[in-house]
Amino acid sequence: MFDKIQTPAVLVDIDVAKRNIERFQAYADSHGLKVRPHIKTHKLPAIAEMQLDAGAVGITCQKISEAEAMVAGSDRLNDVLITYNILGDDKLAALVALARKVRLAVVADNATVIDGLSAAFADAGVTLDVFVECNTGADRCGVGSPEAAAEFASRIASAPGLHFAGLMTYPPVGGAAKVQTFMTEAKALIEAKGIAVPAITSGGSPDMMLAHLAPATTEFRPGTYVYNDRSLVAGGVCSWDDCALTVLATVVSVPAPNRAIIDAGSKTLTSDLLGLTGHGHVLGRPDIAIDQLSEEHGRLRCEGDIGLKVGQRIRVVPNHACVVTNMVDGVHVFGEDRAPELWPVPARGKII
Amino acid sequence: MFDKIQTPAVLVDIDVAKRNIERFQAYADSHGLKVRPHIKTHKLPAIAEMQLDAGAVGITCQKISEAEAMVAGSDRLNDVLITYNILGDDKLAALVALARKVRLAVVADNATVIDGLSAAFADAGVTLDVFVECNTGADRCGVGSPEAAAEFASRIASAPGLHFAGLMTYPPVGGAAKVQTFMTEAKALIEAKGIAVPAITSGGSPDMMLAHLAPATTEFRPGTYVYNDRSLVAGGVCSWDDCALTVLATVVSVPAPNRAIIDAGSKTLTSDLLGLTGHGHVLGRPDIAIDQLSEEHGRLRCEGDIGLKVGQRIRVVPNHACVVTNMVDGVHVFGEDRAPELWPVPARGKII
Repeated sequence: MFDKIQTPAVLVDIDVAKRNIERFQAYADSHGLKVRPHIKTHKLPAIAEMQLDAGAVGITCQKISEAEAMVAGSDRLNDVLITYNILGDDKLAALVALARKVRLAVVADNATVIDGLSAAFADAGVTLDVFVECNTGADRCGVGSPEAAAEFASRIASAPGLHFAGLMTYPPVGGAAKVQTFMTEAKALIEAKGIAVPAITSGGSPDMMLAHLAPATTEFRPGTYVYNDRSLVAGGVCSWDDCALTVLATVVSVPAPNRAIIDAGSKTLTSDLLGLTGHGHVLGRPDIAIDQLSEEHGRLRCEGDIGLKVGQRIRVVPNHACVVTNMVDGVHVFGEDRAPELWPVPARGKII
Repeated sequence: MFDKIQTPAVLVDIDVAKRNIERFQAYADSHGLKVRPHIKTHKLPAIAEMQLDAGAVGITCQKISEAEAMVAGSDRLNDVLITYNILGDDKLAALVALARKVRLAVVADNATVIDGLSAAFADAGVTLDVFVECNTGADRCGVGSPEAAAEFASRIASAPGLHFAGLMTYPPVGGAAKVQTFMTEAKALIEAKGIAVPAITSGGSPDMMLAHLAPATTEFRPGTYVYNDRSLVAGGVCSWDDCALTVLATVVSVPAPNRAIIDAGSKTLTSDLLGLTGHGHVLGRPDIAIDQLSEEHGRLRCEGDIGLKVGQRIRVVPNHACVVTNMVDGVHVFGEDRAPELWPVPARGKII
């Protein structure tokens, strides 16, 4: 099926992706939770459309250029949340331009960002939805307390050009209880000021099936779930059969009985570990470890005879699907009744 | 100087790159060693031309598509070594096409690859230079013994369409003595068969200033040396002032007194560790650790007050320059007398 594809190549089983999308949508529907998938994982307008078809209310992006690429790729992607603090004149101008095209929301966790957004949008005569980002234990961005969340909610609500859209968090694994406590408290404090909290949005594929443990959440933003990867298999969230994204690689050398080298290295698989040991899972060969990556070489080892031949092809489930998507200009999409077809990845490399 | 550049962005100080190129060329000249720089680090034809201007005899590439992009970008890049086992009909056809345009050499460490090269080149009526790749301790590709090297040298020498070009290795750090022993022995065995060994090529920036400790080497292939990075500073090979490539990033959040978040994550800096702790060095702030990367966030921590403000810009020396080049479509090249200019990176993402 993949004979004509030169390696290394990123393959996407579209049937598996569709099943993954539908599985989480069904779970979310059963709990009255809206789904706003993070497109960082696939960066493909066509897959975002599949997510909408399944019932998603819109999409999540991480950077403006990523959102621009997605919106340019489909006129159905017209409801976008960028979960990022955006600042700087050029980016604010781009944000205003995007807000004129689609329903747009962003997040903020500090006064500098809020004031910058307000100045740009009031000046343009456009209103922007802004969520307050809350730190529920991941210690990345986010205000540290419900009181601070309420303070910034007020600031947004009273800022010209802005509309307070609610609360956003990206919790750590196992963080549902903390999300529930923080959000319930913050919501009460904000409502006590007479400000409505239209939405509370949380995310993260590892705990997506536990989203109902934080019932204050109204919307969820899973990303990796569409493809899954070795990190999610390790986390017990899915099986190898649920991994839609794999890297097709060729064995280029078998220099020792227990060692083989493939033509996929860190410039394809990336060095993301996500807490794992090794750099991916060779489908059908759980005895093999990918124990080292150079830029264009991956080293496979096993205890006994590795049993691979030069020229043989293997498929690797990467540690982290989202970063692999970002390494290639196109992915080879296939399905049970669908021959592989190269799809360009329009939002690849959109880091601005 | 960088006010108009949106972040995150990759900056290249061309004066520093030039100095790095010239420094190693002077060392190599003083030891009678030819230089064939590996362009994986910069992927820019214009910088490869600077390397030729300094005295390099040609360039090294890791994949065919990378070589094609470099050759297409400059008619001066007409002497190319691809240090990779190449196999498969499509790639062999591309290799033949490239060999018709430039002086081309590849490596091989097994019979399957040699026989494939021979069939393709004999059929095309073109002769290809082929080196035998030798394992001098890195345990990646490469034949494991001088005897095996001699055996494959014979196979290449007698294969239609191929010319035995010599021996190639990518040694581990500290491997000079092993290189010298292996290469001396292999050369003697090959010459005893009446086959000349035209060149012996070694590489690796960490040990480049020790290349003379393996005097059997006739040619050296440094890559990272043109930009340097945090791994080479840690290895004592250079100082921060010698780092030509930096990532310009903006502080987007200061959620706690000792923590700040920048807009460069693993999709810019990459997760390459190269044995280091943390994900880069903030220029001028040795007290700060970049202790965590998400895809689009970098987390900065320090012991006391971090003293950064939202909107402030910093420059990061990445752990590994070569993989950062590969993340962006363009780099901002500047110099003492040169305003920043965006140079496209033609060989970015060329993994085939």
